[in-house]
Amino acid sequence: MTIIETPSAAAELLKKQDNILILVHGHPDGDTLGCGYSLCRALRAMGKKANVSCSDEIPHKFDYLLKGVDEQSFEPEFITAVDVADTKLLGKKNEELFKDRIDLSIDHHPSNKFFAKSTIVDAKAAAASEVVLQVIRELGQEVTPEIANGIYTGLSTDTGCFRYSNVTPRTLRMAAEMIEAGADNAAINTVMFETKTKSYAALERECLANMQMLFDDRCAMITITQDIFDKTGSDESECDGIAALPRQVEGVLIGITMREKPDGNFKVSLRTHAPIDASELCSKMGGGGHARAAGCQLEGPLENARKVLMKNLKDFFDSENE
Amino acid sequence: MTIIETPSAAAELLKKQDNILILVHGHPDGDTLGCGYSLCRALRAMGKKANVSCSDEIPHKFDYLLKGVDEQSFEPEFITAVDVADTKLLGKKNEELFKDRIDLSIDHHPSNKFFAKSTIVDAKAAAASEVVLQVIRELGQEVTPEIANGIYTGLSTDTGCFRYSNVTPRTLRMAAEMIEAGADNAAINTVMFETKTKSYAALERECLANMQMLFDDRCAMITITQDIFDKTGSDESECDGIAALPRQVEGVLIGITMREKPDGNFKVSLRTHAPIDASELCSKMGGGGHARAAGCQLEGPLENARKVLMKNLKDFFDSENE
Repeated sequence: MTIIETPSAAAELLKKQDNILILVHGHPDGDTLGCGYSLCRALRAMGKKANVSCSDEIPHKFDYLLKGVDEQSFEPEFITAVDVADTKLLGKKNEELFKDRIDLSIDHHPSNKFFAKSTIVDAKAAAASEVVLQVIRELGQEVTPEIANGIYTGLSTDTGCFRYSNVTPRTLRMAAEMIEAGADNAAINTVMFETKTKSYAALERECLANMQMLFDDRCAMITITQDIFDKTGSDESECDGIAALPRQVEGVLIGITMREKPDGNFKVSLRTHAPIDASELCSKMGGGGHARAAGCQLEGPLENARKVLMKNLKDFFDSENE
Repeated sequence: MTIIETPSAAAELLKKQDNILILVHGHPDGDTLGCGYSLCRALRAMGKKANVSCSDEIPHKFDYLLKGVDEQSFEPEFITAVDVADTKLLGKKNEELFKDRIDLSIDHHPSNKFFAKSTIVDAKAAAASEVVLQVIRELGQEVTPEIANGIYTGLSTDTGCFRYSNVTPRTLRMAAEMIEAGADNAAINTVMFETKTKSYAALERECLANMQMLFDDRCAMITITQDIFDKTGSDESECDGIAALPRQVEGVLIGITMREKPDGNFKVSLRTHAPIDASELCSKMGGGGHARAAGCQLEGPLENARKVLMKNLKDFFDSENE
């Protein structure tokens, strides 16, 4: 296991390779897809064969990222994962196929598990796209409008459109550069931040209707059961936006979303306000993530998952009061 | 009436003056206040006397912009308006007092009425704060953390946190520079974009729960009765955010909000997607507004108001099909 310190060293590694498979994480978001497809385009522009692979279906709102990147036929010789902190996050298919074979991990999660032979992690990057952009430049590749769209998508979606505390001056400057390189920022923002699918709108309505205030209104919690997914015609891929809602209520320090997986267990997403460390809280329940956004898995049924969560929240608030 | 072409020429004008009154527009927003207080701080740092004046009360969420800028006692000798396109927008008090006496207008609205003796308008600036920042630099003044907070507030609030099509690479670079100068971007964004009062959150929940899809899902309509205001503890001042919700649903061309006034009549707000002209539709019901956001009043009770609205919408869609 090698830690790579600079984007140029990561680029040197890629330059030597061909037939490169790029893995994005399951339930793909704008950052992992932006990284994956932008890097794929850059590698192909160098004459290399490269594909992007995702265990799960890619939501249609990301169609513009994939356009023109048809699957190439080759046997992978070098495997890189982008925006993937842990092989568990690859999703079932790619975890089974590739978990022990990953050559390079390009990431920004401080919780990266160093599962790859070589890893570059920039925990100060708001999005993995910040790291991938630097790698693409070190590859000597032009940032085409398509690549710019991918990187811009990663920068904007991982920061709530430059809203969150992870934004740095570099994030904003890179976004400026992507617009200059041809990224269609306004159109991307409309799709990502101003449009709700009908199923998402229905899901949001159900979630707000069942939002509970807990611990003297310091927590707000949304619960999404499989019944709610069925009733609204929505699915897990639409939960990212939901996870942001509970923390938005004035006075709430910890926003919680519990969603039931098809197997009856629960995925918990925490969003906190400073100084509460979401990652630390989730690590006590076997999970991890960032300081203000983290997650964990809890065993179902709902009553059980809730019990574990409530116990951990109570312990947290009790220790705060000491 | 003189048009000033460059921020440095505007700065030269200000350098010669003292006892400067800065006017912001009525119902003040983050851009006009960010401009006003940042410019005021810069002028005071030069040893000049300067005040900011607003016709209306300044919402508490902007308290941090005002901190430390106590009113100074002087007779205004030079009056400048920031982010004010028309003297009508100064609000009653300042319009009456100053409308014919304004020396300098610093603005970004293409609709600026050139009411001042000298005017600098940069219509490509996403926020008037982009212009004011350049003027402050040309004044030779350091961008302190307090000034940076003001300019950042203007940049972010006038762009929906860098979401709208008015954002340029310059907007993002200036935001990056403001963060480097000490702007507390994360805290500002939390207050401006991530916080819903409890009453607003309750109102939003009720509104989404009663949202109806109409005319083959081309319209989405929210109805707010006085009962809902009572039940949620909210009031009409909180309806601006609500009016944006129906149009966000995928496929919706006309988003409608009908809200009951205390007298039992209804205020209708329309938000449309291009090419539907909200103003034209509302004018048929005795109202008006902008192309994508307009309104009208309809007589209660609810059944009556709905009937008139449905008739007009039906006529509109029928004429579209012809």
